Amino acid sequence: MQQTRRDFLQKVGVAGGAGVMLHTMGSLGMTSAAHADTPPFNPLKPGSLGRHGRKSVVILGAGVAGLTAAYELLKGGYDVTILEANERPGGRAWTVQGGDRATDTVGQTQRAGFSRGQWMNAGAGRLPQHHITVDYCRELGVELETFVNQNAHGYLWRSGDHRLSGQAIRHREAKADTYGYVAELLAKATDQGALDQYVTTEDKERIISFARSFGSIGPKVPGDPAASFKYTGSGRRGYSVEPGVTAGTPTAPFSLSDVFASGIGNYFSFESGWDQAMQMLHPKGGMQAISEAFVRAIGRQRVKFGALATSLQNTAKGVEVVYQQGHLKRKIEADFAICTVPPQVAAKIPSNLPTEVITALQAPTVTNAGKIGIEYSRRWWELDHKIYGGITNANNELANMWYPSGGFHSKRGVMVGYYNTGSSANTYGALTPKQRLAKALEQGAEIHGEAYKQNVSSAFSVNWATVKHIEGAWVGWRSRTDGNYDRLVAPTKNVYFAGDWLSHTIAWQHGGIVSAREVVEQIHQRVTSR
Amino acid sequence: MQQTRRDFLQKVGVAGGAGVMLHTMGSLGMTSAAHADTPPFNPLKPGSLGRHGRKSVVILGAGVAGLTAAYELLKGGYDVTILEANERPGGRAWTVQGGDRATDTVGQTQRAGFSRGQWMNAGAGRLPQHHITVDYCRELGVELETFVNQNAHGYLWRSGDHRLSGQAIRHREAKADTYGYVAELLAKATDQGALDQYVTTEDKERIISFARSFGSIGPKVPGDPAASFKYTGSGRRGYSVEPGVTAGTPTAPFSLSDVFASGIGNYFSFESGWDQAMQMLHPKGGMQAISEAFVRAIGRQRVKFGALATSLQNTAKGVEVVYQQGHLKRKIEADFAICTVPPQVAAKIPSNLPTEVITALQAPTVTNAGKIGIEYSRRWWELDHKIYGGITNANNELANMWYPSGGFHSKRGVMVGYYNTGSSANTYGALTPKQRLAKALEQGAEIHGEAYKQNVSSAFSVNWATVKHIEGAWVGWRSRTDGNYDRLVAPTKNVYFAGDWLSHTIAWQHGGIVSAREVVEQIHQRVTSR
Repeated sequence: MQQTRRDFLQKVGVAGGAGVMLHTMGSLGMTSAAHADTPPFNPLKPGSLGRHGRKSVVILGAGVAGLTAAYELLKGGYDVTILEANERPGGRAWTVQGGDRATDTVGQTQRAGFSRGQWMNAGAGRLPQHHITVDYCRELGVELETFVNQNAHGYLWRSGDHRLSGQAIRHREAKADTYGYVAELLAKATDQGALDQYVTTEDKERIISFARSFGSIGPKVPGDPAASFKYTGSGRRGYSVEPGVTAGTPTAPFSLSDVFASGIGNYFSFESGWDQAMQMLHPKGGMQAISEAFVRAIGRQRVKFGALATSLQNTAKGVEVVYQQGHLKRKIEADFAICTVPPQVAAKIPSNLPTEVITALQAPTVTNAGKIGIEYSRRWWELDHKIYGGITNANNELANMWYPSGGFHSKRGVMVGYYNTGSSANTYGALTPKQRLAKALEQGAEIHGEAYKQNVSSAFSVNWATVKHIEGAWVGWRSRTDGNYDRLVAPTKNVYFAGDWLSHTIAWQHGGIVSAREVVEQIHQRVTSR
Repeated sequence: MQQTRRDFLQKVGVAGGAGVMLHTMGSLGMTSAAHADTPPFNPLKPGSLGRHGRKSVVILGAGVAGLTAAYELLKGGYDVTILEANERPGGRAWTVQGGDRATDTVGQTQRAGFSRGQWMNAGAGRLPQHHITVDYCRELGVELETFVNQNAHGYLWRSGDHRLSGQAIRHREAKADTYGYVAELLAKATDQGALDQYVTTEDKERIISFARSFGSIGPKVPGDPAASFKYTGSGRRGYSVEPGVTAGTPTAPFSLSDVFASGIGNYFSFESGWDQAMQMLHPKGGMQAISEAFVRAIGRQRVKFGALATSLQNTAKGVEVVYQQGHLKRKIEADFAICTVPPQVAAKIPSNLPTEVITALQAPTVTNAGKIGIEYSRRWWELDHKIYGGITNANNELANMWYPSGGFHSKRGVMVGYYNTGSSANTYGALTPKQRLAKALEQGAEIHGEAYKQNVSSAFSVNWATVKHIEGAWVGWRSRTDGNYDRLVAPTKNVYFAGDWLSHTIAWQHGGIVSAREVVEQIHQRVTSR
């Protein structure tokens, strides 16, 4: 049977390529379901418009959704024009480099002073290996490297009413202690028969064996349940005297009560996330490399930058978009429009869209997020803390701090000094860029020491709520079943909507891509079924 | 107080540099103990020999221990000569590139057919960010990148008497299910009062709250302990239908009994290891880049390759080493010798070392390890499996399979088809290189499907037990307290020993370095105290 299956699969593989083969293998129960393909999509073929003649599509927004729509439509021979209000592609996948200048909606202008080769991803910063975005990087020749999303040497810092308040605790210390106590408690409960109604005798033995390795805990002490399976620390958490020619001395663990009171164990589910578990990737030189590669592939002449749509109309023949580019007002007519700007911005474009569509665009709640990139002329996190990439988490307004994932041992580096959301983002966002830096340095120094304030050569901060033409980090749907979501997934006459906000992977470029591909399929099916 | 401390620390920082500052902070209880420095070492200063005149040291072995010793002694003005029996530096930090040729101790010759830019690390392959090796990379200008030591998309494959036998299970599936059931059992036991003698009422609430996030489990169902805190799967394990414009469908979990019977959860303690937890690093282009940089820094003229020591003698004036280089037999006299070749090899060098030293060299047990590098002309693990680096673990003789940590989306790549130890290594090692490849492809295809056998363009395998002049992967001490270890840490007259085997970080280059630095200090102290 095995051999027959293989022969069959080999034939399928030859005829249909690996995707088909894996799909077939899945059907035969031969692979894990985690092989599941991303939502299926058949790229349009050249000449597929055939007798249906040339069709034109005007796209609002050169974020990844708009760029994907244009790129995929072009494959099928559509005429595409993208109108992008900002002077760069990428939308929220914005990479800030030295010399870049931005004015926000409240009139504050920043000019990035980053050194040559230094940059920050102001928005999208990481790619799970299984996202479609990665496939486009391959197709477009965008070079990828590891994004360090997990580092045992990063810190957890939690202030509060507990005894570990205000200590910079390495992830590895928190994990060793948390898993150690979890293992001790699980092994004790299992051994004492507390779980006998849920597990078999064989399960019990195996659970205890698992716990001993998982938590690095002691053995059973016959006749002494309290002394059994004790967690007393381990080398996993680190050493006060590191192993050398003589043996090392592991640091002492925190107490069980201190560990759970501080909440230092509550971070680790992040590392198991479908979208966050290592391996993670990012483009060399910054995330915007993807949208720039899209623009090159689409053709620079098809993308109008600094072009703000001031009117969007369904007409008898198709659509009409008026846009302002510099001092000029222009009109563009097309068969279809795809609006990929964020819904809260789209809702404000003068249009003849029906009220229920505008209401739907206004339905999702908008989340704010903030980031600051701080360039240092000394990579103190490597030199003094031995941290090579990864994340420090704080329960103050900094929330997340990212160390650079590459350029190890070079002279300079840009740290993300905070990546926060909601009220923390609003607090920082309300400050001037200069005040944001001062506050970030103050708060960061509580975790990293005074070195955090030294060797700062430049900084750039973003408050997404006040980024022009974007006005928010991402949106959330209060309900996906009240009709609003479905109303926007379907076209309004010849106007379509696309974006991560019309997907179930919001705040990921993947979401913008799957949404755009869905619209491409909708349009092409409509055109070719006539 | 806080301000005073900071002022004080700033002064210390200015005067003594970051290392001193962190040390001081540790003393003040201001940093975590995980800041601990690697074993302290003060590099020799130029001219530090002073009135003691020129001193010469002959070093056996150009592995990282021998190279470190030479490099550090040179800083103090010592004359150094390294004798290396092989034609390359690095010892077990051996990077095989296209064109490289090696004949093993049983007379089998392999020539690596890897394409340009492709390579395999036959031995040492990864660096924890906190190892001294990383400091030497910085000092020597060896460029580092991330070594992907953990990848949720890698597979676990376990044959045996259980229902998950022979399935390729993603790490993320195994982890989600294991942590899910651990969390369910822990929450149930805690909530039902089974752990009341060990935890407080407040602890209980916090443990349950932790478990809910850690395992992605359901809530308490009042009055129904069995239905409470149920693990029923989660998106963490992956999707049969991935989220797109419509919602995704997570795959169904394995049963609790299947998870623990299969042992698929037993791997994860690896990821918490002091030496294995991410972030991990490796030099671009292969590990041997480190030893090559050492050789450049030391001076090529001081390192004699193909130079096999045939006699090692303590003499009245110092030491005398006879070595064979090609057809020539040469003699070198020096004040001191440092023998860094593996103990089981050192024991066989004709010498006038006392019997108890030879006995000590023979004391440790030698472990074998094997690796095969398989070059593919298609990166099927990325294209078909969406795996970007990381490790697949199997409980067959393959043990560990490594996907390349870099070069993502390029045309070719070298997979480590097996990295095994002990009896599995011996089984593979007993085969010819051709047979090893055939067997590795057969076993690898059970996990990865038939694509594993296709697009193979070359391979190179190493069996460390039969690598000339090395004859083993690493050693272990049955006892560190029976006198043998200490006997070798101390000099025998003017002969010193160094290597990872004389450290508490065996099988890591870090161990070789700390051992070598210890010997450098011993020699310099002896010379300057006269």
